[in-house]
Amino acid sequence: MPQIDPSSAQAIQPIDSQSNPQWFDYPIRVHPHHTDYGSVVWHGAYVAWLEEARIEALRSVGIDYADWVALGCEMPVVELSLRYHRAMRLGMQGIVKAKMVQVQGVRILWDYRIESPDAQELYVTAQVTLVAIDREKGKIMRRLPAPVQAALVQMRRC
Amino acid sequence: MPQIDPSSAQAIQPIDSQSNPQWFDYPIRVHPHHTDYGSVVWHGAYVAWLEEARIEALRSVGIDYADWVALGCEMPVVELSLRYHRAMRLGMQGIVKAKMVQVQGVRILWDYRIESPDAQELYVTAQVTLVAIDREKGKIMRRLPAPVQAALVQMRRC
Amino acid sequence: MPQIDPSSAQAIQPIDSQSNPQWFDYPIRVHPHHTDYGSVVWHGAYVAWLEEARIEALRSVGIDYADWVALGCEMPVVELSLRYHRAMRLGMQGIVKAKMVQVQGVRILWDYRIESPDAQELYVTAQVTLVAIDREKGKIMRRLPAPVQAALVQMRRC
Amino acid sequence: MPQIDPSSAQAIQPIDSQSNPQWFDYPIRVHPHHTDYGSVVWHGAYVAWLEEARIEALRSVGIDYADWVALGCEMPVVELSLRYHRAMRLGMQGIVKAKMVQVQGVRILWDYRIESPDAQELYVTAQVTLVAIDREKGKIMRRLPAPVQAALVQMRRC
Repeated sequence: MPQIDPSSAQAIQPIDSQSNPQWFDYPIRVHPHHTDYGSVVWHGAYVAWLEEARIEALRSVGIDYADWVALGCEMPVVELSLRYHRAMRLGMQGIVKAKMVQVQGVRILWDYRIESPDAQELYVTAQVTLVAIDREKGKIMRRLPAPVQAALVQMRRC
Repeated sequence: MPQIDPSSAQAIQPIDSQSNPQWFDYPIRVHPHHTDYGSVVWHGAYVAWLEEARIEALRSVGIDYADWVALGCEMPVVELSLRYHRAMRLGMQGIVKAKMVQVQGVRILWDYRIESPDAQELYVTAQVTLVAIDREKGKIMRRLPAPVQAALVQMRRC
Repeated sequence: MPQIDPSSAQAIQPIDSQSNPQWFDYPIRVHPHHTDYGSVVWHGAYVAWLEEARIEALRSVGIDYADWVALGCEMPVVELSLRYHRAMRLGMQGIVKAKMVQVQGVRILWDYRIESPDAQELYVTAQVTLVAIDREKGKIMRRLPAPVQAALVQMRRC
Repeated sequence: MPQIDPSSAQAIQPIDSQSNPQWFDYPIRVHPHHTDYGSVVWHGAYVAWLEEARIEALRSVGIDYADWVALGCEMPVVELSLRYHRAMRLGMQGIVKAKMVQVQGVRILWDYRIESPDAQELYVTAQVTLVAIDREKGKIMRRLPAPVQAALVQMRRC
């Protein structure tokens, strides 16, 4: 049985080795405000799309991040890396593919690919690490709240 | 004498007086990157949504703005005004309602309302004026290109 | 003596008619993230510069907006209008000129001009209306807090 | 003598081992539009600051990036990674410290630290990799243009 409890030795859960979580697909469209002088998407604009895809992926397994925040749990990004393979241009559509690949205590690692809708072009690959914070104390949580754990386990089964 | 349709004398087309164009509805969701320290949408973030709604409204009547740009015609914003009625918060959904209310020569005026999905709350009202520019010459066009005119007339009939 | 108290009949203070407040100058530079596919500043990017200039203008008369927020007073934007006269391009410098032109009860109106450093080119003119909000109650304040009033009076004398 | 020519075997230039380039300091201030619902800087907002610091660092050694673009050479970001150590809050000041640490052919690697002005707090560390592109051909350049090479050598000597 999967364990997310950070105090257990089995905490590190390389999801890929246990199951085969599906990518969550989040469709995007390049609008003028995403582009820069080079007529391509400005490199920082992808960061907002990664965030949107992550939050919608959580919603798809029943986690409403805004409720989570209201309950005092935030999940700030502590690490972010992107690799730009091919530029997206004005008017183009893409799919942000997101999946949670590892839960290690209160750290959650996400993998991303941004592709063309026909999956023939790869635009961006990325990884984002989040950590659960107790909003009131301003401190990292010792463990994920139980409902969050349950939802994450469910997501890993998708 | 004002000229809108370069080929007709009835150029000024106050759309509202002739027809009753429907609002184009563009759904939005508030994500963390839209919010500010006040836990509400940062006032400038709405400007991007107005742009997205406008471009998708044009797409709905067959105008692909990116193609338009590729052909050398740009439609920069020359005037923008927003009135903030009620703040949107993290996780909330809304509908950007957009319609083209007037075409006067190469100037196109859009009206907007951002509402809750059930239309019970009004968040923002806005107006945006665009003007058609010849990209190569860097000058305001003397008249809208014929296919653009045709599409706009169609939109006004929606 | 100037009165900002909203309950008095003299509350409306058309500053221009009484004094001649100087513009506060806030220098800007166009970086890639400000630009769009047209190689000019994206129209929404100016809104952030207006905000920065406003906050630095307040700082110049001793008001630290972050302290203000910490004390429970926010000044959200309730109206915003911009007119775009000439596009700024990558690498260009400009001056955002900001001044508070009217205090009417808890509403504060700002005027802006964005110009070239030599004042020969006008890029944008804008107006922004703010209103003072009690953060805890989520309501519009009945009057500006006394220290804020004092600072604003000082600003109008600049 | 330093060599940036990618065709030579000595192309990889770990600058740190040869000289000790100084950090270029770029001061920043957190304004409302940088913050999110958590009252801290939104994680993606730092990406714009990294870009601004990089461009001003180049300007400090005589490279005007906008001129460079006008001449047909672009330097898009191909890799980006950030680590968030401590959150910046509304009104805070910081210093983006930037330095070019390696030139490998047409790839240029930058290191960053974002610190408090007194250097007692570390907010963010980051690395950005750029590559030189021929704008017209849309292809990676075989080597950096000579004036660019000269300027970069100068920067490495700072």
